[in-house]
Amino acid sequence: MVEKYFWTNGARLLKLGTICERRFQEGGRMSSERPGMALQLRSLVKGSGELELSLVSIPVPVPGPDEVLIRVEATPINPSDLGLLFGAADMTTARQSGTAERPVVTATIPDALMKAMAGRVDRSMPVGNEGAGVVVAAGTSAEAQQLLGRTVAVVAGEMYSQYRCVKAAQCLPLPPDTTAAEGAACFVNPLTALGMVETMRREGHTALVHTAAASNLGQMLNRLCIEDQVGLVNVVRSEQQEQVLRDQGAKHVCNSGVPTFMRDLTEAIVATGATLAFDAIGGGALAGQILGCMETALMRKSGEYQRYGSTTHKQVYIYGMLDTGPTLLKRNFGAAWGVGGWLLMPFLQKVGPEATRQLQMRVVAELKTTFASHYTREVSLAEALQLGEIAVYGRRATGEKYLINPSRGQTG
Amino acid sequence: MVEKYFWTNGARLLKLGTICERRFQEGGRMSSERPGMALQLRSLVKGSGELELSLVSIPVPVPGPDEVLIRVEATPINPSDLGLLFGAADMTTARQSGTAERPVVTATIPDALMKAMAGRVDRSMPVGNEGAGVVVAAGTSAEAQQLLGRTVAVVAGEMYSQYRCVKAAQCLPLPPDTTAAEGAACFVNPLTALGMVETMRREGHTALVHTAAASNLGQMLNRLCIEDQVGLVNVVRSEQQEQVLRDQGAKHVCNSGVPTFMRDLTEAIVATGATLAFDAIGGGALAGQILGCMETALMRKSGEYQRYGSTTHKQVYIYGMLDTGPTLLKRNFGAAWGVGGWLLMPFLQKVGPEATRQLQMRVVAELKTTFASHYTREVSLAEALQLGEIAVYGRRATGEKYLINPSRGQTG
Repeated sequence: MVEKYFWTNGARLLKLGTICERRFQEGGRMSSERPGMALQLRSLVKGSGELELSLVSIPVPVPGPDEVLIRVEATPINPSDLGLLFGAADMTTARQSGTAERPVVTATIPDALMKAMAGRVDRSMPVGNEGAGVVVAAGTSAEAQQLLGRTVAVVAGEMYSQYRCVKAAQCLPLPPDTTAAEGAACFVNPLTALGMVETMRREGHTALVHTAAASNLGQMLNRLCIEDQVGLVNVVRSEQQEQVLRDQGAKHVCNSGVPTFMRDLTEAIVATGATLAFDAIGGGALAGQILGCMETALMRKSGEYQRYGSTTHKQVYIYGMLDTGPTLLKRNFGAAWGVGGWLLMPFLQKVGPEATRQLQMRVVAELKTTFASHYTREVSLAEALQLGEIAVYGRRATGEKYLINPSRGQTG
Repeated sequence: MVEKYFWTNGARLLKLGTICERRFQEGGRMSSERPGMALQLRSLVKGSGELELSLVSIPVPVPGPDEVLIRVEATPINPSDLGLLFGAADMTTARQSGTAERPVVTATIPDALMKAMAGRVDRSMPVGNEGAGVVVAAGTSAEAQQLLGRTVAVVAGEMYSQYRCVKAAQCLPLPPDTTAAEGAACFVNPLTALGMVETMRREGHTALVHTAAASNLGQMLNRLCIEDQVGLVNVVRSEQQEQVLRDQGAKHVCNSGVPTFMRDLTEAIVATGATLAFDAIGGGALAGQILGCMETALMRKSGEYQRYGSTTHKQVYIYGMLDTGPTLLKRNFGAAWGVGGWLLMPFLQKVGPEATRQLQMRVVAELKTTFASHYTREVSLAEALQLGEIAVYGRRATGEKYLINPSRGQTG
């Protein structure tokens, strides 16, 4: 019956059903697999203006009565992890030291950006939002005990660790035929895709524009919008990315790299009626261009001169920062517009636990279809700190998606 | 009892009280003052890429049963009028022709901006949002008749005219001791100032930042915030403007022209707790700087590192475009932020007729104090089209505020 627990609000699970009596029979059982020390990946911003990435050996915690110990087997490197991992460091300055088993990466943080790092200076920080693994030890509570041996997913932070001790209530037990790798990314991307469509509905829009649309998340959103019959305009940056999405059934794909981009985007917006966009790029002119094309589309429909432009509200939410440069808004899109930040956690807090639970139920039901993630490479913790690998996953390039398997390689 | 009518939703009045029986006794009376022709200022964008401003002679309408004819005596040149007046023309190219009585001003519209003018090409457009004057003719309805001889204010558009025929229900009769000049600007600026404070309250903020704060509107907002004990950070661009506001009791005034501006602004935001700004500038870095200073202030209060920045929503509404260049957002202010357009009319539509009526009642009650407007110069329609005058009011310079008196000078 444990499948009836679902994560909510980033830290808690909702109990949906009753607990099997079986749990009491198993009470007090403790796995033998709990090593004394294990590795954890750390990111440290030094007051001297350097970023240091390393593996540290930390004592493996003993679970409290309502806790479980997870042997982490799969944890994705999401774009949302890179901010904490790299801080404001210029990764082109990265240099390698340490050993193959205990690599150390050092990079320079530009002086001007150290101010933004003030809150984390000289605090060694664990990384990794979400992941999955096997529960190898459990506290005495029935809730913890019944997870023993199960493969579970969590969004608990500090997942780039060989072992992670969390509340039993934080765990999302995966269906029996699901591997840790399949379940590792069942929170951030799936709930973000669902959150975008849900935001669209709640704010009165009927179709979406999405940038960096060939990303893992973008492909997921494309599948979701096809399934839910929601109009989606996919903005990509290359012909190859365009083909990836078209092969997956995307109807509207606009390549920002071709001269006809603005016209293509306007036509796709006319066709879908999109007045909301989610932008992963952040910097540059794109957010403003989308608003401009929306305005052109709206004015074409209305046909008459309105001195303050269309009265229909046009919104762009910036949820990523693939381009960390300034956002440039030409404001050639009337007065009914908004640009703002969008993050998953505040969205989930706003919609509340019941709505979050329903979104999460859908993710589990469609984990191998709509919400499947695809990885180009699986690495150990030590491999994740090799300059060659950082150069690849650090590019945030579409199509390159890494999965860390901390249980591979040496022990702590 | 006519004072109990109030304008709402930009076009209609709410009837608050009963109508005097007297109205029936006066039914059918018609003033003798209704000339055959009168002047109206027009703005014409030609397909050739030229803007032409001129005075045209038009027949003075005969009021319908529920209409009145106003002899316009005072109509302000608000920043919100200049957009329609000048269109996208480059006014540094303006040249004069015609006569002193019938001046014509021609200016070039840059090719790149003609697209935005498409909706108004070759359509001669009247200008002037709001104004006041004397009702010199009235239709047969009681509502119209009882306004005869009264000084009334309207926000009806086309006010840069010697005569303006409107529905009686659109008129706001001014108290007997109030002149047309005093009542000419009793809609746009007063309701905008009130709308800003009301938006602050409705969206959960407790203090405000305002840019171009020494403007007529800014001084009004300053008086309103002092009266309502709302924290206000006034951002100005010169020492002289700073002094103007300090002389009027402003507590927080930050001069963007001095090197300590960002520090000053941050301290003022810390002191007031402002998380909402209204920005009349639009272009450049200022909107983003305000968000950055808000974020610094919030993070200082919270004291701990949050990877996505403060979770408190920070908002800037752009309601003017003193700088028509692009808005530049560095996004060094976390994820809980928004920038958007704000206009008076959509705001009034959102809050609805009853809330609008209450705001309007307050304006009338405080028309000679909180909501008083000050003008640097009064001109006739013909004088308003002299290059020398355009050079002054077209600058949108703080402290320069023009009032047109169409009843001065020649007739149509």
